[in-house]
Amino acid sequence: MTNSRSDRPGEFELIAELFAPLATHAGAFGLTDDVAILTPPPGMDLVLKTDAIVEGVHFLPDDPADLVAQKALRVNLSDLGAKGALPVGYLLSLSIPERISMEWLRAFADGLARDQGPWEISLLGGDTTSTPGPVTISVTMVGYVPAGQVIRRSGARPGDVAFVTGLIGNAGAGLEVRRGGGRHLATGDRGYLTRCYQSPLPPVGFGKALRGIASAALDISDGLLADFGHMAQASGVKICIDAGRIPLSPAARNLWGAEAALRAATAGDDYEIAFAAPPARRDEVLRAALACGVRVTEIGRVEAGRGVVLLDDTGAEIAVARAGYTHF
Amino acid sequence: MTNSRSDRPGEFELIAELFAPLATHAGAFGLTDDVAILTPPPGMDLVLKTDAIVEGVHFLPDDPADLVAQKALRVNLSDLGAKGALPVGYLLSLSIPERISMEWLRAFADGLARDQGPWEISLLGGDTTSTPGPVTISVTMVGYVPAGQVIRRSGARPGDVAFVTGLIGNAGAGLEVRRGGGRHLATGDRGYLTRCYQSPLPPVGFGKALRGIASAALDISDGLLADFGHMAQASGVKICIDAGRIPLSPAARNLWGAEAALRAATAGDDYEIAFAAPPARRDEVLRAALACGVRVTEIGRVEAGRGVVLLDDTGAEIAVARAGYTHF
Repeated sequence: MTNSRSDRPGEFELIAELFAPLATHAGAFGLTDDVAILTPPPGMDLVLKTDAIVEGVHFLPDDPADLVAQKALRVNLSDLGAKGALPVGYLLSLSIPERISMEWLRAFADGLARDQGPWEISLLGGDTTSTPGPVTISVTMVGYVPAGQVIRRSGARPGDVAFVTGLIGNAGAGLEVRRGGGRHLATGDRGYLTRCYQSPLPPVGFGKALRGIASAALDISDGLLADFGHMAQASGVKICIDAGRIPLSPAARNLWGAEAALRAATAGDDYEIAFAAPPARRDEVLRAALACGVRVTEIGRVEAGRGVVLLDDTGAEIAVARAGYTHF
Repeated sequence: MTNSRSDRPGEFELIAELFAPLATHAGAFGLTDDVAILTPPPGMDLVLKTDAIVEGVHFLPDDPADLVAQKALRVNLSDLGAKGALPVGYLLSLSIPERISMEWLRAFADGLARDQGPWEISLLGGDTTSTPGPVTISVTMVGYVPAGQVIRRSGARPGDVAFVTGLIGNAGAGLEVRRGGGRHLATGDRGYLTRCYQSPLPPVGFGKALRGIASAALDISDGLLADFGHMAQASGVKICIDAGRIPLSPAARNLWGAEAALRAATAGDDYEIAFAAPPARRDEVLRAALACGVRVTEIGRVEAGRGVVLLDDTGAEIAVARAGYTHF
């Protein structure tokens, strides 16, 4: 296939112009070789995660390209952060249809560049290919964690306290707004929620502070209840969430009204951290949160049993049709 | 999005049934956690590569699913092998449209399983998502190489000999047959070439034997001339390839006739190793090839200058319209 389409240069020129400047890590060889090399510091385990986002499934065709790029990175940064790992870099596999312009690609690369600095990550390698389908972006994030200190899903124990970072449901509310919902909302609320959907901000550094404190952790991507459900299953415990304590934004309350807590608990794409810790570690959790500038809310507890339940103010179980959102 | 389509179970069931059994490495946690952990042995560098294959671009919709899976692995194994690295495992990002059946997915997983054994690799993690577009498979392959011993593209020096493994052009010929070409060929030739396109067999282990012997190496994916061109550029040298010495199969000769060498040199997807070594190391190269059971052919030489040239039997340059195949 020769390159005769739109205004784009060929693959090699594209890589040299847009992506090579992002390969700041020495082991990426400026993208001039076939592989990347990392030399993990002694005593460090390597942490790996891959997640793809697909146009029309995880982002919308008219979402700004720089935000799409940042979302592709952040959904993966979110996983590493929640497990207590520090990200080092990423590999990018980008499948793009003919209609995508050089302007879109420049904005996309700019979005990557703007996230690399704050999170101290480098592009390590990549693959760019054409596709007859939607823009498909697969990122593999690589990081380090001190040997044996990764925070697993499976360590929650009866008696532990269940916490979440940030606000829950904003991204799901933002998707609803992007799809035409929330016409009764003020413009400010609509813009805020849209931005939360397009541009998640995972508390990556806070995961490091949770090492040795949290008994279990994972990031919230499928939805608050679904992800605490994963933790409950892996840990062999029951997790009870108090609906009234789920932290909501005013905008999400305005969108969803009386159903807000339930809707937030079953929306997805929050990219906050769900974690459990023994009650004796509560002060350490809150101190770490203050030090990181991260909002942490105690929203439930771990008990003997199985599964996850959502409880109302009287302690009665709220029926939930489905626990989370699936892109599949 | 709920799962109401075709005969497929949900994402979590799919992972548990088809993919968790492939996560044989302890650090993959049986795909029950969010990240994978690797503890690189002391003195080892980590080697990383990502490559995607897209239906309709890198494979055809009616290619067998098990062969598609193997191709997705092997295009990445090929890179690690050519650089002297030993693969350890891979992360898989799989985007599949609704029409894909459970039967296709079972065959796909079976293809992965059949390659994991011989190459001693494990699934380390993955992501499965729906797509409104073609099947898109992105693999990130992870491996180890003794610190500092990765074979770069950039080490070729004037005086070096240029070598290739295997036969060149079979995959390109197979693609032509798959697209309806070669109707004059015997059925046996057509089947052989088709299989070469669908099912590359990179000489992964041979790269290890080239450590400390080859001055530069890379795998042939864009095409023999294009990839030697990458080596020439990275090394700051000129590489001369003798058209008459390019190793061709009888089937490729039957398809392409008098043009066979030129067509083979500019086809892609060979997944063989192109490498350079000082003439004093020639015997070591050939001994290593015999030990590995890999065919190695001396096809040219490295000179002072720039770029890659294809020469006829009289030493005159053969004009080449384009050096390689690009999927972009």
